[in-house]
Amino acid sequence: MPTRPSRQLATFDNPSPGRDYWIRHECPEFTAVCPVTGQPDFGTIVVLYVPDRKCVELKSLKLYLGSFRDQGHYFEQATNQILDDLVRAVRPRRMTIIGRFNVRGGIATQVVARHPPERRRRPG
Amino acid sequence: MPTRPSRQLATFDNPSPGRDYWIRHECPEFTAVCPVTGQPDFGTIVVLYVPDRKCVELKSLKLYLGSFRDQGHYFEQATNQILDDLVRAVRPRRMTIIGRFNVRGGIATQVVARHPPERRRRPG
Amino acid sequence: MPTRPSRQLATFDNPSPGRDYWIRHECPEFTAVCPVTGQPDFGTIVVLYVPDRKCVELKSLKLYLGSFRDQGHYFEQATNQILDDLVRAVRPRRMTIIGRFNVRGGIATQVVARHPPERRRRPG
Amino acid sequence: MPTRPSRQLATFDNPSPGRDYWIRHECPEFTAVCPVTGQPDFGTIVVLYVPDRKCVELKSLKLYLGSFRDQGHYFEQATNQILDDLVRAVRPRRMTIIGRFNVRGGIATQVVARHPPERRRRPG
Amino acid sequence: MPTRPSRQLATFDNPSPGRDYWIRHECPEFTAVCPVTGQPDFGTIVVLYVPDRKCVELKSLKLYLGSFRDQGHYFEQATNQILDDLVRAVRPRRMTIIGRFNVRGGIATQVVARHPPERRRRPG
Amino acid sequence: MPTRPSRQLATFDNPSPGRDYWIRHECPEFTAVCPVTGQPDFGTIVVLYVPDRKCVELKSLKLYLGSFRDQGHYFEQATNQILDDLVRAVRPRRMTIIGRFNVRGGIATQVVARHPPERRRRPG
Amino acid sequence: MPTRPSRQLATFDNPSPGRDYWIRHECPEFTAVCPVTGQPDFGTIVVLYVPDRKCVELKSLKLYLGSFRDQGHYFEQATNQILDDLVRAVRPRRMTIIGRFNVRGGIATQVVARHPPERRRRPG
Amino acid sequence: MPTRPSRQLATFDNPSPGRDYWIRHECPEFTAVCPVTGQPDFGTIVVLYVPDRKCVELKSLKLYLGSFRDQGHYFEQATNQILDDLVRAVRPRRMTIIGRFNVRGGIATQVVARHPPERRRRPG
Amino acid sequence: MPTRPSRQLATFDNPSPGRDYWIRHECPEFTAVCPVTGQPDFGTIVVLYVPDRKCVELKSLKLYLGSFRDQGHYFEQATNQILDDLVRAVRPRRMTIIGRFNVRGGIATQVVARHPPERRRRPG
Amino acid sequence: MPTRPSRQLATFDNPSPGRDYWIRHECPEFTAVCPVTGQPDFGTIVVLYVPDRKCVELKSLKLYLGSFRDQGHYFEQATNQILDDLVRAVRPRRMTIIGRFNVRGGIATQVVARHPPERRRRPG
Repeated sequence: MPTRPSRQLATFDNPSPGRDYWIRHECPEFTAVCPVTGQPDFGTIVVLYVPDRKCVELKSLKLYLGSFRDQGHYFEQATNQILDDLVRAVRPRRMTIIGRFNVRGGIATQVVARHPPERRRRPG
Repeated sequence: MPTRPSRQLATFDNPSPGRDYWIRHECPEFTAVCPVTGQPDFGTIVVLYVPDRKCVELKSLKLYLGSFRDQGHYFEQATNQILDDLVRAVRPRRMTIIGRFNVRGGIATQVVARHPPERRRRPG
Repeated sequence: MPTRPSRQLATFDNPSPGRDYWIRHECPEFTAVCPVTGQPDFGTIVVLYVPDRKCVELKSLKLYLGSFRDQGHYFEQATNQILDDLVRAVRPRRMTIIGRFNVRGGIATQVVARHPPERRRRPG
Repeated sequence: MPTRPSRQLATFDNPSPGRDYWIRHECPEFTAVCPVTGQPDFGTIVVLYVPDRKCVELKSLKLYLGSFRDQGHYFEQATNQILDDLVRAVRPRRMTIIGRFNVRGGIATQVVARHPPERRRRPG
Repeated sequence: MPTRPSRQLATFDNPSPGRDYWIRHECPEFTAVCPVTGQPDFGTIVVLYVPDRKCVELKSLKLYLGSFRDQGHYFEQATNQILDDLVRAVRPRRMTIIGRFNVRGGIATQVVARHPPERRRRPG
Repeated sequence: MPTRPSRQLATFDNPSPGRDYWIRHECPEFTAVCPVTGQPDFGTIVVLYVPDRKCVELKSLKLYLGSFRDQGHYFEQATNQILDDLVRAVRPRRMTIIGRFNVRGGIATQVVARHPPERRRRPG
Repeated sequence: MPTRPSRQLATFDNPSPGRDYWIRHECPEFTAVCPVTGQPDFGTIVVLYVPDRKCVELKSLKLYLGSFRDQGHYFEQATNQILDDLVRAVRPRRMTIIGRFNVRGGIATQVVARHPPERRRRPG
Repeated sequence: MPTRPSRQLATFDNPSPGRDYWIRHECPEFTAVCPVTGQPDFGTIVVLYVPDRKCVELKSLKLYLGSFRDQGHYFEQATNQILDDLVRAVRPRRMTIIGRFNVRGGIATQVVARHPPERRRRPG
Repeated sequence: MPTRPSRQLATFDNPSPGRDYWIRHECPEFTAVCPVTGQPDFGTIVVLYVPDRKCVELKSLKLYLGSFRDQGHYFEQATNQILDDLVRAVRPRRMTIIGRFNVRGGIATQVVARHPPERRRRPG
Repeated sequence: MPTRPSRQLATFDNPSPGRDYWIRHECPEFTAVCPVTGQPDFGTIVVLYVPDRKCVELKSLKLYLGSFRDQGHYFEQATNQILDDLVRAVRPRRMTIIGRFNVRGGIATQVVARHPPERRRRPG
């Protein structure tokens, strides 16, 4: 029986909670539907975080990102929602979500959101 | 009203039917569903052809490739079906379809099918 | 009826105004006319900003950048004007415009302007 | 006084008419207007030829390609027309025009036309 | 229960047996043991073939290549054995195996074997 | 007699203990076994450190990393364990371990752990 | 009548003097003569500055850099002289000159000089 | 005393005259003067040949190419002249000269000439 | 006791003598001494062959190439000598030696020799 | 008479001692002998410094680096010794030596040493 997209994010215990360290997942197979045109959009989602007590389980992350496949999302909104959902499920010490979206109308778009937010930081 | 995926392939008249020349469309935003696992697969479809009396219209090609989004397909079968459908719609003098599919189980797969088929040719 | 170039910049409500986050649009299809020679110049415009209450709408950004197509502009002036126009329309918390212009006379030129301006910062 | 786009293609005498040799001009600054949407398209035009008695003069080639800037053209038609115009002006022994056009609707397109046409050849 | 390495190569029916077409699997995660030093060697195996009545099933190919993990093999011998085993299991019309092996002693090695063998062909 | 994998990390005296300097070893031939599926995982381990009185000997580092070959490890746990083992053996002034792991389920993962841990640092 | 190399640096008024912004000119066609061997040296000169009241005019910059063509210069001296000359002509708020010189005797050389000089800064 | 540009091409005896083999020299430091504008042009010259009884000596080749530095040349003419001069000096069994010239007016140019000329060959 | 450079080329039995297949060894760590200046030269040697009854053993190939380290060699002569020595030791069905040498005097040199020699072939 | 390797480092007067600026020499042709195996090691040495009263002369730097060719050195020791020797000869305001060494046993090594040493800095 095939696996289905899912909004559930499974976690496992951080093996080294005594140390601040970074985990980075890069998923180049993200797709959603443009709410205006109904056409599919494609992009890459990068999840970068310092775990606290829990780490996100890789397969559930894949299924979670797959759940956007049939939904309408703006780039800015999808990136922020992924950050909100992952912060709620994993309670990381710090987390950054980078959404890199393919060219539409000759323009490529990237959105970067962080938790907790910092007012003074600037991407390279 | 959003545009929908479609199996219809629109064409327009070849502007230079007196000359053999090549047209190449590269679509890096192809996705289908694995018939075994139900998980989405991703890849790039390249359409390369010498038109005869008709050329394939770009937007209808996009919608046609988008129609695979919710269907189950093996890599080998999808590539051959795209060739069959395009040959039927465009009646090209020659056509090659290249399907490059993302890594699954640590293995990347590419399928190349040509019309009319040639027994003795070998990709580089 | 074809869409026309336009100086109007449409916006939409920032979906996460409570968080400082970055949006980056890269448009490699910028062209204007050299005011001295009358010859077309080509380049890439990068828009990078932290939205406050509004985000710039992608299609209107494309049409806005397209409105430079038939106008005479120096590289330095065009980059600063794009920053001024976007700051006025979007009222971002921070914004950077990067103009990368193709080789002219064997020299490639890049211009980087920020809002609000900072005296002590230096590009990499 | 600024130089204007022009359909005139100037030539100069081939300095080595006794030898078959290849000249290749690559122009990454080609733009035209999509006849359907009225939006600008961008791409690269490559001119590759064996001169007979005349070579195309570089500045007039630039102005000729610039004359497409405000005209509506399909990719397939523009590539074939450039071949026709250059063959008429330069009378080369052989010539190939390659048009590589930027992504539209997630699909990049390339068109390759040759003079004199060959039925059995296939790009790599 | 974990999956185990296996010498069994599963196949499925070629969906387009009436057409000669190419399938290419690239596996960058190949490892075996050097029979002289007992140290692990690493490399990439490329399988390129024209199927006849059967195609190799992707997961069984992965497990088959994984079965080399604990065995001693010279580069030249491993590449030829993979060709022999796959020809026996799949009975392809044509097949090429490319083994690209990581640097040992400052030297990178590549082995290319074909079925049926051709005396006069030369890699680029 | 072949060399065997080993958990022993040999060291030699730091030739310049009076100076803080960095040593970086990059090993792209790391493999372990996924504890869930029993399938092999592959990746690159980077060891970056400021030695104090001892440096890690290159061949023993290779054998140490080879000792993971037949063991079950999660990415997050393996990276932290390598850091713990190397800190214990070498007693460096500072050390960073970067584990870059190949795509699994369409997602590439990287883990970065440092000693001594720093709360406020962020990878690029 | 051909244009000649020239030591004159023309300027134009900064279009946005109220804002600190960066201009970067990269000229990969720099050549001078080695004062020891009399042989030509080749390299790239990058000019990076924050204009105050004046910007350097592009064509005069090209002619200025071309004036080194027949003169003997050491890499270190040429880079510093270009900085001195441009600071005198343009009076920038800040300026950096990067000279990247081609391999001589198996060694590639780069020189980076800034105005006003900073004691504590280090290139990446 | 500095070495001077020179039109003299020195040779040495081919060490393996009994065997047809290829020698390829790539010189990315070629410069001449545009006969129309008086401005310097830059490019790369590739010399590719099968020696007969003589090989071209490397330093004299460098000085020969340096002799173009102060002379006016069109791209097409310079490439053919280098072929003529080298054929005369070295009497190779076969020789190809490739001239790749930097962007002028937004267009990059390449010229390829062969000895003895072949009517039916085409660059990739 | 350290291993010494050696002119001896060890071989082992071809594991698949019934099949024509290619073996390619790429050694980027070749160095010899320029017979004119006494200065070291550096380059990459590629050995590409179809074995007959014997294959060259990797470690002895490394030691053989290392034996050039203290000897004076011209590029053209070294490449041909390596071909002669390997043909004598391995008796291959076909063999190609490619010598790619680092820039000297601004010129990079490549030499390609084949056994048995072919009059009509041309590198890409 | 050929030039010989030499431990002497010649200098010349800094042309701009009133300004802090950076000089970077990159030498990809470094080789020494492994003290354990007697086999040659290869790598790249980067010298990066702010001159005070003297600059290192390029040819003497080349000969100095060439003097390691026949000596036994560990990577860590060679990098630190080059820093010590250059600091002694040139008395720079600041200097960094980067040694990047080729793969040995599947592991690439890099060593970075600075003068004057800084406790808190970290490479990218």
